[in-house]
Amino acid sequence: MSHPTSTTPPRPRGEGASTGRVVLVGGGPGAEDLLTVRAHRHLARATVVVTDRLAPRGVLRDLGPHVEIVDVGKTPYHHPVPQHEINRLLVERARAGDYVVRLKGGDPYVFGRGGEELAHCRAAGIECEVVPGVTSAFAAPAAADIPVTHRGVSTGVLLVSGHDELSPQVLADWPHTVVVLMGMGRLRELCAALVAAGRPASTRVAVVQQAWTPDERTVRGDLASIADLVLAERITNPATIVVGPVVDALPLGDAHAAHAVPVSV
Amino acid sequence: MSHPTSTTPPRPRGEGASTGRVVLVGGGPGAEDLLTVRAHRHLARATVVVTDRLAPRGVLRDLGPHVEIVDVGKTPYHHPVPQHEINRLLVERARAGDYVVRLKGGDPYVFGRGGEELAHCRAAGIECEVVPGVTSAFAAPAAADIPVTHRGVSTGVLLVSGHDELSPQVLADWPHTVVVLMGMGRLRELCAALVAAGRPASTRVAVVQQAWTPDERTVRGDLASIADLVLAERITNPATIVVGPVVDALPLGDAHAAHAVPVSV
Repeated sequence: MSHPTSTTPPRPRGEGASTGRVVLVGGGPGAEDLLTVRAHRHLARATVVVTDRLAPRGVLRDLGPHVEIVDVGKTPYHHPVPQHEINRLLVERARAGDYVVRLKGGDPYVFGRGGEELAHCRAAGIECEVVPGVTSAFAAPAAADIPVTHRGVSTGVLLVSGHDELSPQVLADWPHTVVVLMGMGRLRELCAALVAAGRPASTRVAVVQQAWTPDERTVRGDLASIADLVLAERITNPATIVVGPVVDALPLGDAHAAHAVPVSV
Repeated sequence: MSHPTSTTPPRPRGEGASTGRVVLVGGGPGAEDLLTVRAHRHLARATVVVTDRLAPRGVLRDLGPHVEIVDVGKTPYHHPVPQHEINRLLVERARAGDYVVRLKGGDPYVFGRGGEELAHCRAAGIECEVVPGVTSAFAAPAAADIPVTHRGVSTGVLLVSGHDELSPQVLADWPHTVVVLMGMGRLRELCAALVAAGRPASTRVAVVQQAWTPDERTVRGDLASIADLVLAERITNPATIVVGPVVDALPLGDAHAAHAVPVSV
């Protein structure tokens, strides 16, 4: 495979195509109004929406009765639709002339497998574009008053997924913010590995559950305590893990202070 | 400073406050319709908008004539308003009863100094909230058909700013995607340092200028060639640097292929 070096002008991003197409839409971290205007415009044109479990499903209520909703999301007790089936479905519907919106939580290209879907569609000759979304990796910390970068505290972010093989040494050596998505199933193991690799047990950690939804909750602790705290507080998926001193960089808002419930460490 | 461990419910996010307040709004990577719906709602209520150079200024045209625009942005030939002056301005206007929207490019908490502004406002007793935006760190690569994560190619992202001290060894040792914001002034130095630290000179690099605007352009090369290519093609700020094999993970779209202009390496 050759990789010619090239300069490319922006591609046309017209929305008036009359033939079938696929649009990979980032749904943001949870709230309906944290979708972009462009995302809503594509949803308004969709004839079929293929949705994930983490997509903000509230927006589906506003679609017309003619719009077909296909749910391919994973749930703990139901097998998800395999990726190759999703790929096949997108191409099949676009070939049939549908305006296919593939709605995902967060951003399609941040652990969203959007790249695989775009590659599959283009290989099949289907027009496909992406609409970037607000990523949960940064928006979930923000919901808990945690800026992933902050002058004098953190000058960068290392973002990984708990579903992938993690190198504790890399995560321990990186002195700034670490964000882990989909890491709740391995939280205890992850924290222990970071401490074993040299990160102080007192390193601050926050876990933010269902950010920007009515079920949002945050637990703050450290590498030694957070796994027990999450268990005690029954924090569940989906949740975002933030490691580093940014966890305490900002004063919490009044509402936070008023409702704060101290728990033992 | 104590860091009590606490569980916090979501704070109320009502928008009906009649007294002054400050809202830190992420303006996304460049296109007006890549702002969130929530961002537009806050802009529609603003009595004053304090804007950055990288904010999507097109949205300011749609504001009513009663809305005051305060430009605190940096430009190459004009001194920007210092951060402490911005902080002071936000508090002063909110105290005067204004609905202050602080409009930033990208996301307020990703190298946007939003945390400093929120801390300052809250310390002064001003109600302040953040509206996360689509970060250029991920959306600029997406504009160039580059997914920052991709199965079998990259399982994570290291995000840094060229304005901060960078450890070439950390960047070289991280085997997945590296994204550098505000790094154009140090591009040649950065690439040389990465090669010196052990990253192959053939490691692919893309530079995406003004993503999601009519002036979007992308140059693809490698650590050995990209600085010269950027110079030859006159790629200018603002631009996002992406390092790693994700640069070539996807087939380029038809429009890209049709317009691709091969240049010598």
